Amino acid sequence: MTRPIIGRVAPERWRTIGATAPGQRTVGEPGTARIAVDLLGGDQAPDVVVDGALRACQADPSLHLTLVGPADAADAVLAALDPADRQRITTAITPADTVRNAVRAIAQGHADALVSAGDTAVTVLAAARELGRWPGVRRPALAAILPTAAGRLVLLDVGSTVDPDAATLAVHARLGAAYASVVNGVTEPRVGLLTIGSEPGKGDRLRRALPPLLEELPLPAAARYIGLVEGNDVVLGSAADVVVTDGFTGNVLLKGLETGYALAGPPAPDTDLPPRAALLLGVGGTVVVCHGAATGPDLAAGIGFAADLHRRASVAAIADLLRYSEVSHD
Amino acid sequence: MTRPIIGRVAPERWRTIGATAPGQRTVGEPGTARIAVDLLGGDQAPDVVVDGALRACQADPSLHLTLVGPADAADAVLAALDPADRQRITTAITPADTVRNAVRAIAQGHADALVSAGDTAVTVLAAARELGRWPGVRRPALAAILPTAAGRLVLLDVGSTVDPDAATLAVHARLGAAYASVVNGVTEPRVGLLTIGSEPGKGDRLRRALPPLLEELPLPAAARYIGLVEGNDVVLGSAADVVVTDGFTGNVLLKGLETGYALAGPPAPDTDLPPRAALLLGVGGTVVVCHGAATGPDLAAGIGFAADLHRRASVAAIADLLRYSEVSHD
Repeated sequence: MTRPIIGRVAPERWRTIGATAPGQRTVGEPGTARIAVDLLGGDQAPDVVVDGALRACQADPSLHLTLVGPADAADAVLAALDPADRQRITTAITPADTVRNAVRAIAQGHADALVSAGDTAVTVLAAARELGRWPGVRRPALAAILPTAAGRLVLLDVGSTVDPDAATLAVHARLGAAYASVVNGVTEPRVGLLTIGSEPGKGDRLRRALPPLLEELPLPAAARYIGLVEGNDVVLGSAADVVVTDGFTGNVLLKGLETGYALAGPPAPDTDLPPRAALLLGVGGTVVVCHGAATGPDLAAGIGFAADLHRRASVAAIADLLRYSEVSHD
Repeated sequence: MTRPIIGRVAPERWRTIGATAPGQRTVGEPGTARIAVDLLGGDQAPDVVVDGALRACQADPSLHLTLVGPADAADAVLAALDPADRQRITTAITPADTVRNAVRAIAQGHADALVSAGDTAVTVLAAARELGRWPGVRRPALAAILPTAAGRLVLLDVGSTVDPDAATLAVHARLGAAYASVVNGVTEPRVGLLTIGSEPGKGDRLRRALPPLLEELPLPAAARYIGLVEGNDVVLGSAADVVVTDGFTGNVLLKGLETGYALAGPPAPDTDLPPRAALLLGVGGTVVVCHGAATGPDLAAGIGFAADLHRRASVAAIADLLRYSEVSHD
C-alpha cells in the first residue's frame, strides 16, 4: 500500500498531499476540522480505531484526519477510502507514544483536536505537558455529557482525577459550569455535588469537606451551586446541569449508565444519546477521550464531537468564560 | 381511632390481639412473617410507609406487621384495613427512635425482620448494637440486588460503609459471595472488584491495594475472585455475580441504575426488577433498608423481600455458609 505522503515522515513532521511543507504551521480551511487520531488507543485498537476513522470520514466531508500510529493501521484506512478522499488523511507513522505524538500535532498546529481511546492517565499527562494547563488547574477534568429525562447534563470528573482533594473538585466545579454554558447552551447552570444523601453531613470525608468551599466559590457563566445531588439526579437531570464528583465514582457511574442506556434506551423517549466521549478540561487544546472499550461507532462519534468542538471554538470560549488567557507549562 | 391493642403499649412491649402476653417471646405461625416497619423512616414518611404497609398487607395474607412510630400513622394503616385484617397488625407507639425500637422487636423475638427507609447510618448502628455483629465483621455491608442482562447481581456496599479500608472490602467480598449463593442461588459465585479499568494498577489508592488481598481470600460457597470489573459489568452481568465496592460508589451507582431502569426499562427485556431494597449483611438478624426517597411501592417491595428472606431463613443460611455460629456485641 502506498500512502499519499512523500515517504514515511517522522511523527513530528506532519504531511498531507497538497498541504504545507513539513514543519510549517498549518491552518485548516474554514469549516474543516483536522483531528489527530490515536490509532493505538483502546482495548481493540487499532481495528476499532480504523473502523471509527472510516465512519467519521464518511459522515463528514470536511473532516481531515491525522492518523498517528503504525503504518499497517494507517494503510487500512487509506485502502478503504476513495482516492479523492485520501487527501483528507495525513499519516504520522510511529510504533509507540501515539498519544504524545497526537498531542504534539495540536501543539505544532498540524491538528485542531485529538481523539484517543487509550489510557486516560497517559493522555492527560501528555496533554498537560505538551499543551499546558490553564492557570489554577493542577489536575485537568474529564467531562462527560449524559442524556437525562430533562436535557443534557455535564458529569465530571469521569476518570482523569482519582483520589482528588476538595480544592481540585472546586476547580472542577468551575470548569464544568463553563462547559455546560458553552457546549450545552445552559443559561445559569446549576452545579450539584454528587453524594449519597440529600441532607448535609452525608457522604464520605471528601464530600463532607466540600460544601463550605462550593458555597463560597465564584462560578462562571452565572452558574450557582445548588447543593447535594444523588445518583438518581444524574438520570433525572431536573436538579442540576453540572454534577461534580471524583474521577473514580464518575467513571463507574458513567460506564454503568451509558451501558444501561445502550441496552434499554435513553432515560427519556425522544432523547438523543450524546457521544460516548469526554472532553479534557483545563488543558490548552481540544482533547477528546473515548473509553478503552470504545467501538468503531463510539470512536466515530468521538471524532465528530472533537470536530464540532473545534468548529464552535468551544475550548477557547470555555477558557474565556473562566478568564484564562494563557496556559502554564509548570 | 381505636387500635386493636390494649391501650398504647410502650414500644418495648409488643402486642397483638390474640397473641402472647407482653414480654413473652413470640414465635410466628408457620408461613407467617412478622415484619417490623419503621413508620418514620424515609423522606416522605410516614405517608409513604403507611401506603407501603397497606400494599404489603394486601399482597400477602400471611404477613404480620409491627408498626413502629407515632399513633396517627399506625391508625392510618388500621383504618384502611378490613377489620379481619387488623389483627395482623401490632402497633408500637413511639414518637422517636423508631428504628432502634424496630430492631428491638427482632432482638426480643416479637418480629422476624425489619424494614426501614430511614437514615442508613442510624439503622446500621442500631442493628449492630441490638442484634450483634458476626465475628470478624466490624462494618456490616448493605447489599443490593440488581437486574442485569445476564441475571441478578449482588452489589455491595451500597451505603453502609463509606471510607472503608481494604480489609473491610475483603470481608464484604465474603459476605457478598454467601449472599449470592443463598439468595440468588448462584453456584460458585464470581466475585469482582469494581474499578475504572480492566488492567491491574487502575483505580484509586484503595482499589490498587485490594487485589492482592482478594486473590488470597478464602471465599464461601465455592466462590472465586475473578478480578477487576467496571461500571458496565454491573449492567451486563456477564463477568461477575458479586461486585464489591465502597458504600459511596455503590450507592451512587445503585441509585443511578435503578432510576435509569425505572425510566427506560430493565437491562434485558424479560428481566424482573428486584426490590429497590438492600439487606444489611453481618448483623444477627434480617434488616432490610429502603432508599430515603422510597415510594409506597418500594416500601411494599422491601417488606415483601424481608418476609421472603425470613421464610427462606436466608440470613441464617448465609451465616452458616460463613461458619458464623454466634454474634458479637463488642
